[in-house]
Amino acid sequence: MTRQLYELCGADPERRFSPYCWRSRLALAHKGLEAEVVPWRFTEADRLAFANSDKVPVLVDDDRVVADSWAIAEYLEAAYPDRPSLFNGNKAHVRFVIAWTDVTISAQVLRLVICDIPDLLNPEQAAYFRTSREKRMGMPFYEIAKDREARLPAFRKSLAPLRLVLGQQSFVGGDAPDYADYAVFASFMWARVVSPLQLLEEDDPVHAWRERMLDLYDGMARKVPHG
Amino acid sequence: MTRQLYELCGADPERRFSPYCWRSRLALAHKGLEAEVVPWRFTEADRLAFANSDKVPVLVDDDRVVADSWAIAEYLEAAYPDRPSLFNGNKAHVRFVIAWTDVTISAQVLRLVICDIPDLLNPEQAAYFRTSREKRMGMPFYEIAKDREARLPAFRKSLAPLRLVLGQQSFVGGDAPDYADYAVFASFMWARVVSPLQLLEEDDPVHAWRERMLDLYDGMARKVPHG
Repeated sequence: MTRQLYELCGADPERRFSPYCWRSRLALAHKGLEAEVVPWRFTEADRLAFANSDKVPVLVDDDRVVADSWAIAEYLEAAYPDRPSLFNGNKAHVRFVIAWTDVTISAQVLRLVICDIPDLLNPEQAAYFRTSREKRMGMPFYEIAKDREARLPAFRKSLAPLRLVLGQQSFVGGDAPDYADYAVFASFMWARVVSPLQLLEEDDPVHAWRERMLDLYDGMARKVPHG
Repeated sequence: MTRQLYELCGADPERRFSPYCWRSRLALAHKGLEAEVVPWRFTEADRLAFANSDKVPVLVDDDRVVADSWAIAEYLEAAYPDRPSLFNGNKAHVRFVIAWTDVTISAQVLRLVICDIPDLLNPEQAAYFRTSREKRMGMPFYEIAKDREARLPAFRKSLAPLRLVLGQQSFVGGDAPDYADYAVFASFMWARVVSPLQLLEEDDPVHAWRERMLDLYDGMARKVPHG
């Protein structure tokens, strides 16, 4: 196979947890494209030098190299126009959903689950991750973690726009999922793979949607080992 | 003209301030359709009995009567398919933007400007409005108003997803505005028409977008008397 996706993983290469990599992995599945998983770990920036990047995801598609999840989505849409459309309408509207995810969901999920990530990593990776992220966030992980249960109600409340549309339609994209769904779901996958924390209550329409997303593509996301 | 839009107004019929009516008014303009303004005021529910509704907007289009802003948008899109598309892609994605507006923006704008609304109304309307809304909100308007300046930073912060996409594209709809833009902008029109409160800072990309929206259709929204 000449198609590869470099994806962030833990010590176990099956534990793929980057939300941005999940956006690309689901985009590939949407297009019906197979791609070998190339496990990649923090501190392996040199392995991505060929892509002029220091972060995953990186897609290698025959002789094309594309870094960054949004660039990958745009590339796939342009390169495979005969496959189902990722943006399924207007890319500009999808960008709004992504912006909402990045601003509202990702920032909260980060603070809810980051303390669980070192447990997934080998000791060297864990030390690097903890040191760099604690510096960036200005506090130790145990401080970030300590009130996380108390922050769940606010997190769930912030999902109100998603909850409202999922009361009107099965997916953010309407009757079928598209890149808007993948962008949001990828943040839930991140949380699922790294943490045992139950982000959603079972009677939440967002929970039911997440179950539908886990079922897609023969349960592709559900099969990944989780916290 | 056989096309009419019933719109909420103050004592001055030019002071049209309902965000839902603005969604419909802008949708008509997007389709290039003229419609007579029929001024409607709180407590005039009987005047809408013909539409099986007690709320505006109500659209009368020849022999068709449609109540509710979303139903009006869907009606216009179906009835005038050869005119520019309101949803400009995928209606499901537009619904997400609307849900975000309803949950995040409208609720905050309501609390920021509601205390200014009685000043627009004649005494009978003002008394009705104050009594019914203070009961619904569980506190008097002066209580709701008293810390409103202090709430502006949080309001502006909550616009982050909008700000992020408007850094990437001119309109929520992309290069040109569509119903997603109208839904968000309608809440800003509501605030503008009823209140002198400056919701946005002048160097905010959302402010620049609002100016572009005010310019649309020969300055249609800009011409309306404001607070």
